[in-house]
Amino acid sequence: MKAVVLVSGGMDSATLLHLVHKRLGADDIHALSYHYGQRHGRELQMAEWQCKHLPAVTRWVPVDISFYGHMAAGATVLSDEGAPVPRLDEIPADQLDQPCTYVPNRNMILLSLAVGYAESVGARTVYYGAQAQDEYGYWDCTAEFVARMNQVLALNRRDGVRIEAPFAAVRKADELRLGLTMGVDYAHTWTCYRGEALACGVCPSCVERLKAFAEVGIPDPVPYAAS
Amino acid sequence: MKAVVLVSGGMDSATLLHLVHKRLGADDIHALSYHYGQRHGRELQMAEWQCKHLPAVTRWVPVDISFYGHMAAGATVLSDEGAPVPRLDEIPADQLDQPCTYVPNRNMILLSLAVGYAESVGARTVYYGAQAQDEYGYWDCTAEFVARMNQVLALNRRDGVRIEAPFAAVRKADELRLGLTMGVDYAHTWTCYRGEALACGVCPSCVERLKAFAEVGIPDPVPYAAS
Repeated sequence: MKAVVLVSGGMDSATLLHLVHKRLGADDIHALSYHYGQRHGRELQMAEWQCKHLPAVTRWVPVDISFYGHMAAGATVLSDEGAPVPRLDEIPADQLDQPCTYVPNRNMILLSLAVGYAESVGARTVYYGAQAQDEYGYWDCTAEFVARMNQVLALNRRDGVRIEAPFAAVRKADELRLGLTMGVDYAHTWTCYRGEALACGVCPSCVERLKAFAEVGIPDPVPYAAS
Repeated sequence: MKAVVLVSGGMDSATLLHLVHKRLGADDIHALSYHYGQRHGRELQMAEWQCKHLPAVTRWVPVDISFYGHMAAGATVLSDEGAPVPRLDEIPADQLDQPCTYVPNRNMILLSLAVGYAESVGARTVYYGAQAQDEYGYWDCTAEFVARMNQVLALNRRDGVRIEAPFAAVRKADELRLGLTMGVDYAHTWTCYRGEALACGVCPSCVERLKAFAEVGIPDPVPYAAS
């Protein structure tokens, strides 16, 4: 079975990649990794490592949409032109449902390209690692977002493509437990929003990751800066 | 009022640009024109001409997504790597609802980038010139497509962006009549799918355009090859 998987290099997409192969049976995986003007290339390096170490990935397709970082500059702190990435505890409570780390319409952009690519190569499913966070979130990471995207795609008059987000309603700790049973190497994943040598441990993304490892009761193999 | 308008350089988007300014009152228009690996640059030149000649266009933003032409190569004849563009009468009847000139998921890609850009610059509406063709068509040019896209975008937790496609249910001849009353210069639009010096007059796109001019009863100012 052929499948397209979005692989960012974070722990969600690394887990997803293994799930799609080992549990869902895909043996011809085209993995798409986007450079969209992130602050750093660490995630992409991890994406490449994950893809190169899973033989079911028959094609790794890095896609440079860094022009979008310029188009959306000023509207997100994740672009290298934006303001500093805050600590999770610096984000006001009334902004947690769409914090400054939100990238305008990012996931529709990434998915629309992936769906078009999948249609072109004859894959019927795009897998995407959107994951429900505990303390903050984004509208374009929800199960409802995926459901409505599929309602658009259902209009295709030929063999269309569906989006699947198996973790959309799964807690990160449960996803981590699943990944560990599948042998995912989390040392080769990168989650921190900041572009520094060590993960910061305090940005929203690090906080959620560390909480998941703490809940499962194992150390995170990624090195963190002393806080 | 600020607005984002997709301007391809064809007759639909030129008409749309004038409509958004002259009838809908936008006076701060950001016009986006995509290079997606089309066979030729004529359309883009016309897009630039239209935008430079309407003072309400405060910013013309050409966006190069030609990498997508490579990603989708082989799946469409509109990419410069694809097969020749057929005459409309060479397309089998059972393929007219999604002919080989279809570009996989193109309009979702173009719109998702435009929506993200609009959100970044604080515009609330993206206008898009999708137009119901008489003899053939694409699922991503329909009013239903736009309605479902807006159902996705309605999930945004802040001031979201809506897509409007004023011509989605308008016949091309009626759109042309409207454009003529608004002073659109159709000599500076390009519709032909083929990348030749003169419009071919026989590709699906030319056929629909010529039919509209014939119905309105005026000559098309664009030069055509003798058939």
